Amino acid sequence: MAKIGYLGPRGTFTKLAVDTAFNGENKHSFTTIPECIDAVNDGEIDVGVVPLENAIEGTVQITVDYLVHQVRLPVMAEIVVPIQQHLLVKPGFAGELSEVPEVYSHSHAIAQCHQFLHMHMPDAKMNFTSSTGKAAELVSSGENNMAAIGNRLAANEYGLDIFQENIHDYPNNHTRFVVLAKNKEIVNVKHEAEAEKTSLLITLPSDYAGALYQVLAAFAWRRMNLSKIESRPMKTGLGNYFFIIDVNQPYDEVLFPGVKAELEALGCNVTILGTFPVYQIDL
Amino acid sequence: MAKIGYLGPRGTFTKLAVDTAFNGENKHSFTTIPECIDAVNDGEIDVGVVPLENAIEGTVQITVDYLVHQVRLPVMAEIVVPIQQHLLVKPGFAGELSEVPEVYSHSHAIAQCHQFLHMHMPDAKMNFTSSTGKAAELVSSGENNMAAIGNRLAANEYGLDIFQENIHDYPNNHTRFVVLAKNKEIVNVKHEAEAEKTSLLITLPSDYAGALYQVLAAFAWRRMNLSKIESRPMKTGLGNYFFIIDVNQPYDEVLFPGVKAELEALGCNVTILGTFPVYQIDL
Repeated sequence: MAKIGYLGPRGTFTKLAVDTAFNGENKHSFTTIPECIDAVNDGEIDVGVVPLENAIEGTVQITVDYLVHQVRLPVMAEIVVPIQQHLLVKPGFAGELSEVPEVYSHSHAIAQCHQFLHMHMPDAKMNFTSSTGKAAELVSSGENNMAAIGNRLAANEYGLDIFQENIHDYPNNHTRFVVLAKNKEIVNVKHEAEAEKTSLLITLPSDYAGALYQVLAAFAWRRMNLSKIESRPMKTGLGNYFFIIDVNQPYDEVLFPGVKAELEALGCNVTILGTFPVYQIDL
Repeated sequence: MAKIGYLGPRGTFTKLAVDTAFNGENKHSFTTIPECIDAVNDGEIDVGVVPLENAIEGTVQITVDYLVHQVRLPVMAEIVVPIQQHLLVKPGFAGELSEVPEVYSHSHAIAQCHQFLHMHMPDAKMNFTSSTGKAAELVSSGENNMAAIGNRLAANEYGLDIFQENIHDYPNNHTRFVVLAKNKEIVNVKHEAEAEKTSLLITLPSDYAGALYQVLAAFAWRRMNLSKIESRPMKTGLGNYFFIIDVNQPYDEVLFPGVKAELEALGCNVTILGTFPVYQIDL
């Protein structure tokens, strides 16, 4: 059975993604994104799952930067999970929302529920924790009228009740996770893939007007659709950028080598970060 | 004197940016990014400073999403601050690195110092806090041999010594902050601006191959240089995107209206988020 590592602690969205996507109990929590990526690289674990986009517990920047600058592991799959935030209380609590004096959660989770909190709990004091799981843990061992914001898994893990469901401001918020592994065969997601994607890292030779336009031309005239494009500064200083581009199709032996050759002729550097299935998970 | 709001608490990189960029003492800490933006919108404060990119305390996503979907305030300035992480200890500590059993900081700050910690403090236990300022506060009131990771301001605010300077992995890491205000005259940054930028929000009529290429054509043939491009999913569901594009020049009455008219003819929606000076701050 594959050893799967993830960004912990228990009760976070990363753990929720791992539990929903993978069978088995051989799952190991890591405290930081680089540690989890290192563990895959060192062979300590077979599969690593870390947040890539729009996450509560981590940001795309650390994952992208670490993969680009430190450890080049291929992306084997992408997992998309809807973000559903609930107001969690201890089972004994039978009061009203207005009787909750303190709310605990990660600052991003509190920000995601801004409108609900502003409207229904304007007087409650907000306390920031290092993760949504940590907030649930704190509330489970605290006073009866405290509340946490977190997901269903956090409620289960720490024995809390869901007092109010789906208190997040935007119904279509998602978190994307990447699944990293050295060996494709060991990655067994227990869902049907929705789509196939290829992720590219492109660096430009120098910063001139229209450079990105030239890069995109290589994709556009081949009718290759891009689902994401992001510029990130190089760590060598301001003014130099690399681009992460996601193409909505699997790698092939004609179109992608053609794009690569054309861009390299322009002086670009092109690296295939991975070609992988995308799993859209409903909770 | 302008009332300036920022994402707190004390001792964070946002506070460091505010103190370095603005004179005066009329500064107010907010606990979340939306609260700070709301306060500018409601007239409770004159100027709001929130992180936009590569920040420790907040992510670009919440700031961008809130400005795009909830409160359209113009960006009046951008402040770029280098990220310098130090290992902070209590003044009484005179031991070795290896004698520090526990390190406190925000998980992103710990991730940014991954190599240093891995090499010099492999046995220390990492404890996550909700901000780097909070970590400094905890260490200042704790045992003598605990350490925090944070900036110089956190050391000053909480009376800690810098045991080891610049322990972050990448020397060229920066955080960008946006300065929001309803009135340009009230924003007085005490530095010389390095550059001028214009930030645009562009939504595409539908998701088709080459759409972004067409958008960039409007800039490329006018030789307008882009310093940032980022696609973000619309909150209406997966598959619909908007783009944030930064152009390296101030708004003018010829080129920008031309771009806007051309893109609108293609069915795009174009909003000018702001045209503003960029302040590069050295610590």
